Amino acid sequence: MKKTFISLLILLQSTAFAQTKNTPNLIPFVKPIIGTQKMGHTFPGATVPFGMVQLSPDTDTLSYEKNGKYNPDMYRYCAGYQYDDRTIVGFSHTHFSGTGHSDLGDFLIMPTTGALQLNPGTANNPAGGYRSAFSHANELAEPAYYKVKLDDHNITAELTASNRVGFHQYTFPASDQSHIILDLMAGIYNYENKNVWTFVRVENDTLITGYRQTTGWARTRTVYFAMSFSKPFYQYGSQNNSKKEVYRGFWGRFDQAHNFPEMAGRQLRAYFDFKTTEGEKIKIKFALSPVSTEGALRNMRTEIPHWNFDQVKQESQALWNKELSKVTVEMLNADEKINFYTGVYHAFLGPTTYMDVDGSYKGLDQNIHKANGFTNYTTFSLWDTYRALHPLFNVLQPKRNADMVQSMLAHYDQSVHKMLPVWSHYANENWCMIGYHSVPVIADAVMKGNAPFDAMKALEACATTARHKSFDGIGYYMEQGYVPDDKSSSSVSKTLEYAYDDWCIAQMAKKLNRMDLYEEFSKRALNYKNVYDASIGFMRPKLSNGSFKTQFDVLSTHNQGFIEGNAWNYSLYVPHDPTAMIQLMGGDKRFIPHLDSLFTMDLPDKFFAETEDITRDGIIGNYVHGNEPAHHVAYLYNWTTQPWKTQDRIRMILKKMYHPTPDGLGGNDDCGQMSAWYIFSSLGFYPVCPGSEQYSLGSPAVKTASIQLENGKVFTIEAKNQSDKNVYVQKVLLNGKPLTQHYITHSDIMNGGNLVFYMASKPVKK
Amino acid sequence: MKKTFISLLILLQSTAFAQTKNTPNLIPFVKPIIGTQKMGHTFPGATVPFGMVQLSPDTDTLSYEKNGKYNPDMYRYCAGYQYDDRTIVGFSHTHFSGTGHSDLGDFLIMPTTGALQLNPGTANNPAGGYRSAFSHANELAEPAYYKVKLDDHNITAELTASNRVGFHQYTFPASDQSHIILDLMAGIYNYENKNVWTFVRVENDTLITGYRQTTGWARTRTVYFAMSFSKPFYQYGSQNNSKKEVYRGFWGRFDQAHNFPEMAGRQLRAYFDFKTTEGEKIKIKFALSPVSTEGALRNMRTEIPHWNFDQVKQESQALWNKELSKVTVEMLNADEKINFYTGVYHAFLGPTTYMDVDGSYKGLDQNIHKANGFTNYTTFSLWDTYRALHPLFNVLQPKRNADMVQSMLAHYDQSVHKMLPVWSHYANENWCMIGYHSVPVIADAVMKGNAPFDAMKALEACATTARHKSFDGIGYYMEQGYVPDDKSSSSVSKTLEYAYDDWCIAQMAKKLNRMDLYEEFSKRALNYKNVYDASIGFMRPKLSNGSFKTQFDVLSTHNQGFIEGNAWNYSLYVPHDPTAMIQLMGGDKRFIPHLDSLFTMDLPDKFFAETEDITRDGIIGNYVHGNEPAHHVAYLYNWTTQPWKTQDRIRMILKKMYHPTPDGLGGNDDCGQMSAWYIFSSLGFYPVCPGSEQYSLGSPAVKTASIQLENGKVFTIEAKNQSDKNVYVQKVLLNGKPLTQHYITHSDIMNGGNLVFYMASKPVKK
Repeated sequence: MKKTFISLLILLQSTAFAQTKNTPNLIPFVKPIIGTQKMGHTFPGATVPFGMVQLSPDTDTLSYEKNGKYNPDMYRYCAGYQYDDRTIVGFSHTHFSGTGHSDLGDFLIMPTTGALQLNPGTANNPAGGYRSAFSHANELAEPAYYKVKLDDHNITAELTASNRVGFHQYTFPASDQSHIILDLMAGIYNYENKNVWTFVRVENDTLITGYRQTTGWARTRTVYFAMSFSKPFYQYGSQNNSKKEVYRGFWGRFDQAHNFPEMAGRQLRAYFDFKTTEGEKIKIKFALSPVSTEGALRNMRTEIPHWNFDQVKQESQALWNKELSKVTVEMLNADEKINFYTGVYHAFLGPTTYMDVDGSYKGLDQNIHKANGFTNYTTFSLWDTYRALHPLFNVLQPKRNADMVQSMLAHYDQSVHKMLPVWSHYANENWCMIGYHSVPVIADAVMKGNAPFDAMKALEACATTARHKSFDGIGYYMEQGYVPDDKSSSSVSKTLEYAYDDWCIAQMAKKLNRMDLYEEFSKRALNYKNVYDASIGFMRPKLSNGSFKTQFDVLSTHNQGFIEGNAWNYSLYVPHDPTAMIQLMGGDKRFIPHLDSLFTMDLPDKFFAETEDITRDGIIGNYVHGNEPAHHVAYLYNWTTQPWKTQDRIRMILKKMYHPTPDGLGGNDDCGQMSAWYIFSSLGFYPVCPGSEQYSLGSPAVKTASIQLENGKVFTIEAKNQSDKNVYVQKVLLNGKPLTQHYITHSDIMNGGNLVFYMASKPVKK
Repeated sequence: MKKTFISLLILLQSTAFAQTKNTPNLIPFVKPIIGTQKMGHTFPGATVPFGMVQLSPDTDTLSYEKNGKYNPDMYRYCAGYQYDDRTIVGFSHTHFSGTGHSDLGDFLIMPTTGALQLNPGTANNPAGGYRSAFSHANELAEPAYYKVKLDDHNITAELTASNRVGFHQYTFPASDQSHIILDLMAGIYNYENKNVWTFVRVENDTLITGYRQTTGWARTRTVYFAMSFSKPFYQYGSQNNSKKEVYRGFWGRFDQAHNFPEMAGRQLRAYFDFKTTEGEKIKIKFALSPVSTEGALRNMRTEIPHWNFDQVKQESQALWNKELSKVTVEMLNADEKINFYTGVYHAFLGPTTYMDVDGSYKGLDQNIHKANGFTNYTTFSLWDTYRALHPLFNVLQPKRNADMVQSMLAHYDQSVHKMLPVWSHYANENWCMIGYHSVPVIADAVMKGNAPFDAMKALEACATTARHKSFDGIGYYMEQGYVPDDKSSSSVSKTLEYAYDDWCIAQMAKKLNRMDLYEEFSKRALNYKNVYDASIGFMRPKLSNGSFKTQFDVLSTHNQGFIEGNAWNYSLYVPHDPTAMIQLMGGDKRFIPHLDSLFTMDLPDKFFAETEDITRDGIIGNYVHGNEPAHHVAYLYNWTTQPWKTQDRIRMILKKMYHPTPDGLGGNDDCGQMSAWYIFSSLGFYPVCPGSEQYSLGSPAVKTASIQLENGKVFTIEAKNQSDKNVYVQKVLLNGKPLTQHYITHSDIMNGGNLVFYMASKPVKK
């Protein structure tokens, strides 16, 4: 038995080695710590690509409420970790990456020594609780591996993870008072009543199961777990800090605080006690399931049937290297290569796996479903990710992207509203942000031929969603051709985004020969015109009586009919027809200076203060890169007579907005959208209009790049004479032939081939 | 299609008729209203035998708490209905029958007319809410059928049910404001935080699904539902009265109060609006599931795939008649026959079915399990029901009783404590009352040869449960031979009941040839002797130092080492060896006068006030029939030289404790135990010691009885010269041969045959 195990180990190691021989080791170029300071909202912990478990240190857990009101400070803790903090509260198993609103932070584990403390303490008084000081000098964050020294407890913590199992390894000092705390009160965006219920069973002296059920961003969310210790604890206990448990019946007669194997309530903290020798490692496998504790246990036993921490770390890092090496790049310097691969890393953190190893998952209808023939995913931040992340997946992850569409269609099937996801996570629709941006994701997949699902059904789902009259002004939009600002907030943003989404439906309908839908939605796609005020040259909120809103400031984002953008940025949002938009805005003559000034004007501080989710660095002039609505804007010069300005602006944004440092992201990474922008733009092209097959050309930052496609073909990019000065493109050859337009198509990429940019320090003005 | 349906209907009707021709119609002899006044704690609503749905009117819903303390008044509402009340709040789908503690009352439905009121109002101000006045003159309660006129709304309400589906039929007046209210805040033994979470989906304009999750007697209980209307509502809405929902996020931007199809929160009330014509019937099918809304919907579609209310009523009453007619009796008058069949009815209300039509159920481990080869049951009030109810099932319901044991063994398998059920309901152990009385239920089945389960495994489960040292004094009991009163309350009751349970294990072990266990538990079975104080002739609490408790009152039940009984009653509790007990207590000479005085002494009022769960009528002298510990006591004369006193006492108790009136039960029916006592005693015998094969003879109240056994055989009982005066048994012939002992055996019954009692007005003293 032992012999077989060792042979297997050797086999696995040699496989890993063989992989390493064929592919470069890109792990060193990923710095998960990037974006953990200020507004990036990323987390530094351990996960596999698209992993269910994202196990990461939390440096604080501020309350959602302060004096009965929303506490804006908690916003900093969307991912649980802030680089400037000096203490770690513990390690929890679920995190969003880069979001601007939050949830999760399930099942916080903290190893401690000394007298048992069952509260986390505060940043100002860490000694008053179980949290520990730490130093970045003693911290290491890699893909699928995180290590830190917990100074107050003299414990070294190491984390790794498989898809559904977090693996903790804690190296203790000699102590008769070593503890592992499982804090079920902890959570991100927490408040007193967020825990609906928690339940813990001590199955035996090494195995715990249970669940946590919360209400918050996800209204009705339950995560099940199974937790296994490498060493038996000798005693355990728990505290229920809820004053809400009124029933004083018969289970109250037990000593529930000590060694009582069934804990339940709204505010539980449990502890497990050990005696440790110097340097003794206590390991924990912590598996999650969306379905049941039985499912969590099955996930654990299937994914990690052993206690070899290093093996899991190695296998999970090999998974990362496999995904990272789908695109190999050479860049001008190591920093840019780190930006690039950390971008790929962040782009591949989600959507996250949301099903057990047997395919079971909880549906939006709260029933248990089986994913037949696809991997079910959750965490769809679609207002962000339809722009570049899902298009990136259509290149680098087509199989996964099709499964994500399948997951969205399953969501639709289970939706009592009969709507595709807006922002969904963990069997819940949280309705965050605007639009129905499942549509461009589906359209992009269909139009690019990556649709191994029932496309006709998907089209119906898109159309049904887009006609949901009671949703967010759609009824008015359908009747009046725009969302009236006196009826629904962010009216212009909605009108513009609906119009674009409608265009996507029309394209799909055309391809699928549903000309009725093509006509219906082509007409709707023109609705952007209805909110353009020619008298001022901006998109502008219109009232239900047909007049434009009078009190209006084109620089403000506050109650001006927009969301996460002002009129300057949002007026440029007609991705499906920039040519018509430019015409509308007066043609090149008026449009180009307008666009120029976006990047050069001086935005007064008072307007910056209104701009959400970004640092001062996340803005260039009045161009807000830290939010999404303008992500396509720098490419719009391609539709004018001055495309070289796109080239210049892109290189400037790449330089200014991304740095290989903890504060290196100028705004929320938004589940990978900011990173996907970096990846595409570095490669020299960008999907200005998902749902079309075109990628607009910019200015590559890579020297060379090679994309290993899932279909076995290879698409390479080369930038001749690449340098920081040579940001202008003289000419472009696709497979040796000069390009006569400013785009390439998806087929160009998927057919394999090479794209060569000739770079120069001066623009080609012709 | 229509033709087929009609033929089917005729077929069903003729089947029902055929049944009626072969079996007497016993439905008229069942009065579900019996026990609904005062302490009986029964409910008058509609259910099938052992049904999951027990749909019944609730006349009030007092809070578990009053001024921060337990509210003793709510005790009256254990079954939701009190006969003296003048208003009905609504009709809820789950009820306990006859318990002395409570829970349930899930999914209260109320039809109303006029201005919508979304609160129940109070008994003193019914007009302030949706509740309605009613009159018993307009009320009819039959097995599987309940009807009442709701005076305030001019609505006639009718209820019937299949196993898992409640069927409501409401006859409305003409009204533009007709409502159906679904109150998810309502519940029995309710309090503000009892609702952990509730969730409702309006799937379409006739179908609602959802769940209610509570904490209370069952700590973690979830019931799922599917609710179907016979007619579409034209609008709907809900109110969340919880102040605990803190999150003010994106789902808050909807108008959730009106026509919003997903309701969730801690304190929900929903309404569905109709316009009705005079006499229009709106019907509701309301299915439950322990597993999921999908399961509830499947249960509904499987059990009642149509809208024919009368058909369901007829079929469900036919089910009752089938069960009732397993024993046909002739008695001295109609009242006694009503007592008898209402007893059978109450005895067959539970344990309740706890699995979906596909066999799925929630286990104690909160995972979903499939019941393979058995029906899974819940609602095990074992401290009550091991005495006579489960023995009755071994005669009348052997298949079901074996399934109940299987359900208990599944509970054991799923128990993190590794214990058989104590008092369990809905995938929860509520730890109510004392002892480990799954043991006698299992032993009784094994010893009586009704064990189509793994008896050896069952024996191990019994032994493991009995050795659970941290449970309720068992550790002390095992070390010291008794439960020390200074270590654990109700110490004498526990010692006595543990000793009896241990005897049961020993008997099973002997039969299964596990002589090690036989010896271990035979020794423990003698522990009753350790709490007998010969100096006073009573069982008496003993302290851990070996001395008896000094401050001791043999009449008091308050902190005297007993529960639901005083030393007088409990001192007679050695069911497994009355002979030895009588010897211990000084032999016949001292024992008989002692037992006589139990029935004749005058219990001072102050002690009555301490006696729980019974009315003044539930007590005869100091003999407390309204509670269980003395249920075997009147039969103990059979172990003396004066067995005729058993005959006299039994007839007296049958007369005094049971009446065919709402206040006809002198104490809680306790899930059928009180009724089972009536049935056995009326038939002329009683299982003094479940786990033995013997039934001790009393004095039959029947003139004749015929038991149709599941094995196809028939056992008949005849009482010659039966009259109210002729309570004494002159002689007994079993299959024509005179009995020489005061018992018959289980085999005597199961083999079929006849038992003839010769009755006389004078005792046979020989």
